[in-house]
Amino acid sequence: MKRIGIDVGGTGIQIGLVDETFRIVEEDSVPTRTDLTFEQQISQMASCVDRLLKKNGLQEKDVASIGAGIPGIAAEDGVVVKCTNMGWEHVPFRQEFQKHFHLPILIDNDANVAALAESVAGVSAGTSSSVFITIGTGIGSGIIINGKIWKGAHGIGGELGHVIMNLDGVPCTCGNRGCLERYCAATAVIRMGREAAMTHPESLLHQYSKNLDKITAKTVFEAAKTGDQAALVVYHNFINYLAQAIASVINLLDPEIIVLGGGVSKAGDFLLDPLKKTYRKYVLFRDLPVPEIKIATLGSEAGIIGAAMLT
Amino acid sequence: MKRIGIDVGGTGIQIGLVDETFRIVEEDSVPTRTDLTFEQQISQMASCVDRLLKKNGLQEKDVASIGAGIPGIAAEDGVVVKCTNMGWEHVPFRQEFQKHFHLPILIDNDANVAALAESVAGVSAGTSSSVFITIGTGIGSGIIINGKIWKGAHGIGGELGHVIMNLDGVPCTCGNRGCLERYCAATAVIRMGREAAMTHPESLLHQYSKNLDKITAKTVFEAAKTGDQAALVVYHNFINYLAQAIASVINLLDPEIIVLGGGVSKAGDFLLDPLKKTYRKYVLFRDLPVPEIKIATLGSEAGIIGAAMLT
Repeated sequence: MKRIGIDVGGTGIQIGLVDETFRIVEEDSVPTRTDLTFEQQISQMASCVDRLLKKNGLQEKDVASIGAGIPGIAAEDGVVVKCTNMGWEHVPFRQEFQKHFHLPILIDNDANVAALAESVAGVSAGTSSSVFITIGTGIGSGIIINGKIWKGAHGIGGELGHVIMNLDGVPCTCGNRGCLERYCAATAVIRMGREAAMTHPESLLHQYSKNLDKITAKTVFEAAKTGDQAALVVYHNFINYLAQAIASVINLLDPEIIVLGGGVSKAGDFLLDPLKKTYRKYVLFRDLPVPEIKIATLGSEAGIIGAAMLT
Repeated sequence: MKRIGIDVGGTGIQIGLVDETFRIVEEDSVPTRTDLTFEQQISQMASCVDRLLKKNGLQEKDVASIGAGIPGIAAEDGVVVKCTNMGWEHVPFRQEFQKHFHLPILIDNDANVAALAESVAGVSAGTSSSVFITIGTGIGSGIIINGKIWKGAHGIGGELGHVIMNLDGVPCTCGNRGCLERYCAATAVIRMGREAAMTHPESLLHQYSKNLDKITAKTVFEAAKTGDQAALVVYHNFINYLAQAIASVINLLDPEIIVLGGGVSKAGDFLLDPLKKTYRKYVLFRDLPVPEIKIATLGSEAGIIGAAMLT
């Protein structure tokens, strides 16, 4: 049976009809509108689901479930506990959505949902445990254990970006210091790149980013690729921090595989190759078999596919 | 049915007969003898099990299983992959033990076994997820998820002591820098206490530990209790590091409860009270319900009880 997956994002809400082989048959979207009440926003989503069904000659009874991945905390009972992007707190998502569709309505955190998608239909398909790390503006993570999302006992886990890597390190927006996000998110690469460009006006990095406000993680990586010393220092630091964080995940959880997703993971082998050379030395039992690291393969589709697969 | 639990330690091997209510009915021990072959050492253990059974008027058929907790890495197939204390590598423990008893022989890492014991018969009884942190000479941990030991995919997880807390921090015996063990194990408290005593010859800590080689974690804590400034600095650092590590476990895994065991946990409320005041601020979602921290209640019996409960 087909399923509906909803990927709730900060600028848009992607909704897809997913078939039995985990492929998106049809996709549509509605804008994220924080000016609407949650009832209105959910009503918009429901209308979009309706359009998708009609367009594919389907009725409610032809669909097994509607799942949604949200950038926030979701409780077991279908309540969105907290979703800063939508301005939602304790929103009864399931209850509200079921006013439109009498189907199982399932929600989970977006990183958890992407982790599930990769573990069933993506790069970690066939594994029973994995940790998915999404590296973009921030850093999120999703944990799969025994083939299922590990939500945590209070729904507050999976926040690898705020695992403290450096006592008394760089201040973080969360109020603490030295969180992984401050060294390995795209924003961190930008910050470190900007600092390096300012300190090294002779660098290619400085030329690439004439306007320091326009520097991106990609600019920094591109400069590093050409061998620019200033950019290479930032790049090596980034790799080293990420390798240590991955090793800490392994030392604690030891999943079958570590999957890297999110915008920064688009760097592909330029990210993966040095990581593979580095992370093992930070693992305690580095002379025994250790988890592999791979780049996610579903890209932005993971949100819809994973949401559709929630049970 | 009764079960046998074996707690393999660096100086002695404790063996107990455990009843259906998880109580140790009778206990015996054999010395740890690294000069023996593994066949001889296992034969010693088997003889001890035999004595225990006879003494209680039991036969092999009256026992459900024999389990062992080992300070090392145990594979699913009953092979001890690595156990430094015993000098064992790839020792076929199950196969060898079954030459003496035709019973299910089960093995696991000692911290995992203690985590299981506490989660069934100890302080975390009734919870379905927990992280047990044992703080002694080193720091180990065991993870319980959905009521079962999470062994990791390669058996190399649960090494919270080697999660990196401080990039470029204090060098660790494992070859890395800034591992938690370097800040929060008993050996770390001793190192920091010794440094503080040397820097502050006027301190009570210095008087308490006239011979700096004899300083212990207990000496440091005792001096801190009396308000000695030098000792208090060490104590506060220790609490702060441990609080951050616990928060990182919560940010990543979010178990129902965190349980502290091992020698250092005997400090009880002197450890627990300041930790409770500190750890929440390092948790990302600190305004939502977070896991509790409690002190283990089974003490050294956890090793035997947990081993007996392995399935």
